[in-house]
Amino acid sequence: MSAAASRLGGVLSPVLTPFGANGAPCVERFVRLCRSLLDQSVGLAIFGTNSEANSLSVNEKRALLDALLDAGLPPGRMMPGTGACALPDAIELTRHAVASGCAGVLMLPPFYYKGVGDEGLFRAFARVIDAVDDERLRIYLYHIPPVAQVGFSAALIERLLDAFPGTIAGVKDSSGDWSNTAMMLERFQPHGFDVFAGSETFLLRTLQAGGAGCITATGNVNARAIARLAREWRAADAALRQRELDAIRAIFQQFPMIPAMKAAIAWQSGDEAWANLRPPLVELDAAQRAKLQTELTAAGFEVVGAAGLARGAAH
Amino acid sequence: MSAAASRLGGVLSPVLTPFGANGAPCVERFVRLCRSLLDQSVGLAIFGTNSEANSLSVNEKRALLDALLDAGLPPGRMMPGTGACALPDAIELTRHAVASGCAGVLMLPPFYYKGVGDEGLFRAFARVIDAVDDERLRIYLYHIPPVAQVGFSAALIERLLDAFPGTIAGVKDSSGDWSNTAMMLERFQPHGFDVFAGSETFLLRTLQAGGAGCITATGNVNARAIARLAREWRAADAALRQRELDAIRAIFQQFPMIPAMKAAIAWQSGDEAWANLRPPLVELDAAQRAKLQTELTAAGFEVVGAAGLARGAAH
Repeated sequence: MSAAASRLGGVLSPVLTPFGANGAPCVERFVRLCRSLLDQSVGLAIFGTNSEANSLSVNEKRALLDALLDAGLPPGRMMPGTGACALPDAIELTRHAVASGCAGVLMLPPFYYKGVGDEGLFRAFARVIDAVDDERLRIYLYHIPPVAQVGFSAALIERLLDAFPGTIAGVKDSSGDWSNTAMMLERFQPHGFDVFAGSETFLLRTLQAGGAGCITATGNVNARAIARLAREWRAADAALRQRELDAIRAIFQQFPMIPAMKAAIAWQSGDEAWANLRPPLVELDAAQRAKLQTELTAAGFEVVGAAGLARGAAH
Repeated sequence: MSAAASRLGGVLSPVLTPFGANGAPCVERFVRLCRSLLDQSVGLAIFGTNSEANSLSVNEKRALLDALLDAGLPPGRMMPGTGACALPDAIELTRHAVASGCAGVLMLPPFYYKGVGDEGLFRAFARVIDAVDDERLRIYLYHIPPVAQVGFSAALIERLLDAFPGTIAGVKDSSGDWSNTAMMLERFQPHGFDVFAGSETFLLRTLQAGGAGCITATGNVNARAIARLAREWRAADAALRQRELDAIRAIFQQFPMIPAMKAAIAWQSGDEAWANLRPPLVELDAAQRAKLQTELTAAGFEVVGAAGLARGAAH
């Protein structure tokens, strides 16, 4: 929790949230997956979109974060998602993350009202920052207009950086639009604003342009290979590695991503409970699952660390 | 709280939520507005979109509902919004509303994930109904795709009605699309499913087609006239009354509606705190406010009950 804690970089993953048969988050499986990801050099962006985090209550999220800390996992490698529609929720979870020593938080804007202006979004972030009132706070802006519908304009980022230098630490750009990521890399990365691509699709390009890395759903299943490219992006075969990552991602992207990743872990770990989702998300049907397994097998793909995720595996 | 409590009907309003200078909901002003609306025959759809309800935490909403009950307001005229992205939040607030004797609840679907299917939405509602497990529960589906982006298909409504007859009690259709409201009136109203138009714009047509009434934002400011049309919709001058309501609504709709209604109340009650909003919403600027006041004055419009909302007014 030193003020000189190193900045987050490289690859992080919005960690999947396992649910038990009773519909509650399963702490044991969650801790195991988080430890496995860390072992493969992937940081913990717990409570992201792919974590079904907006389907969790604030109390459920507090309990999951506490469980990681109790298990001895390092908060310096954590960037929990703490944004919410309601400011009191965002403030409570952000405060808890900072008090827990988390290296940063990934904040969605309030996303219920559509078409809100930069002024209102600026005030929302200012309220959180004022309320948390802690110089350790590092906010990464979570820009994901395809889902949240509400996003961050360049003008808003500039205003936030001017008003809260040091606190506004970077962005996850899940716009899916490389031109937007490139704009942020050019305009804001040189000013201490770390740009993370929203998926490994843009990992190589982001690193070549001076960016910080990526925060990617498929980090949950293809952690080692993605982390390797992040480490060795200057190598001669980097473009080939990028294409290999893209090919695996393309398999998952044929399906709803969250159910597909959970199905892959359930299949390869032999622990069927991994396939559970919380409504409104639903699991893959049998045909989808068969197709996924066939294609992953043909690609020679293994969920990294799947054996360690098996029920009752030593940890 | 008798099982034979009469069904909700006529006009309800998503009650505006007043905020104090500290950003917290102002209980006293809230109780006063709710009482004023009831006095004008408008029911209390507290915690709707126009209540900034998704900007409130579950605890804030529980406290506001409790304050109304403590003040002696009748739960039989309340339809609190209890939908949320996270099922535990929806369950907690719905359970509290039912235990408090509220006549119904207005439920948004979980709205973070976009493009989810009917199966997932069905499961979400089934989980709430199973968890609340109370035969007094009456759920009104809140269909507002322009904001929530996630809505209710006819097939989903049919499935919910089949699975939970009696519990699925109706809909607020804020699609803004009369053909959708007409479809619901034709297909579902005859089966004990009460269709409320999402604004007074469609009030006369809804009542003529056998619908239950409307749940409308402008009920906050134009309560008496809207309630009168709901009562006297068979009168010879009903079409004229509808046009009068439309003309007033058109003034407010030139602006962001929530700030405009709050500005009108602040202006006419003389209690400036009414203009406060919670981020990401922002108040009208001076030019907007001047234009609003000029047009309301020209229309001879008075916020109904404004005098009773003045700071320190007897109640």
